[in-house]
Amino acid sequence: MSDRDAILFANGAFYLAFTNRDLEAMAEVWSVHKSVSCVHPGWSILYGLDHVMRSWQGILRNPNAPKVKVHNERVEVLGDSAIVTCVEELKGQQFLAATNIFVREGSAWRLVHHQAGPANVDPQSLGPPEDERPRGPVN
Amino acid sequence: MSDRDAILFANGAFYLAFTNRDLEAMAEVWSVHKSVSCVHPGWSILYGLDHVMRSWQGILRNPNAPKVKVHNERVEVLGDSAIVTCVEELKGQQFLAATNIFVREGSAWRLVHHQAGPANVDPQSLGPPEDERPRGPVN
Repeated sequence: MSDRDAILFANGAFYLAFTNRDLEAMAEVWSVHKSVSCVHPGWSILYGLDHVMRSWQGILRNPNAPKVKVHNERVEVLGDSAIVTCVEELKGQQFLAATNIFVREGSAWRLVHHQAGPANVDPQSLGPPEDERPRGPVN
Repeated sequence: MSDRDAILFANGAFYLAFTNRDLEAMAEVWSVHKSVSCVHPGWSILYGLDHVMRSWQGILRNPNAPKVKVHNERVEVLGDSAIVTCVEELKGQQFLAATNIFVREGSAWRLVHHQAGPANVDPQSLGPPEDERPRGPVN
């Protein structure tokens, strides 16, 4: 698997954990070796895995937490770290712009920073969401 | 100069260019070797140096563009790249949370990605802004 594919896989795992409200899977996504940080829309900046995971616990346990579809991922590989930018679609065509920063840890890429904030997105500019894309030939 | 100091210097140069509305200095801040991207608050994601610099041209030439004070910078060095998170203060105690990603290019650190978005910040949590901090002993 290329670095780019492995990074997109890690980014997809982040959004899958979000959508499935799977706190265990969300914990797996984040780096345990680096100092992590997270900016939810409209929140202050959270530092440290404990704070970040506590915030996700609150979000994922909230039955009113929005489902998220992810569009238009772009990867910029910077050696052993990488930036993924993408558009998050909440219900009702509300859009967020997101920055996700990953680092290589062994054979995996782990999230060290996430920021999402309100964005003015033209729905016409969006590709299909990650979970509705063709997977290539089955055989 | 340590990596951390050099990264904070580059981050300071970014905000100085912003505050001084100095488009030439702003152009100096950004990487010319990597694909850059930028998310202004409420905008869509901009890709490529041309698009990004055109956006800064619009912002810096606008006499109503806000002055920005920067607080609480934190640096996470990831080898030859680095994340700076900080709080941007606009007039009237409006606050933004910002993510700035730098890469090492020769002896300098250059910006490859910037995102800022509205944040709920307790003013009590803020240290003095960068331009009002003591500079250490003069002699």
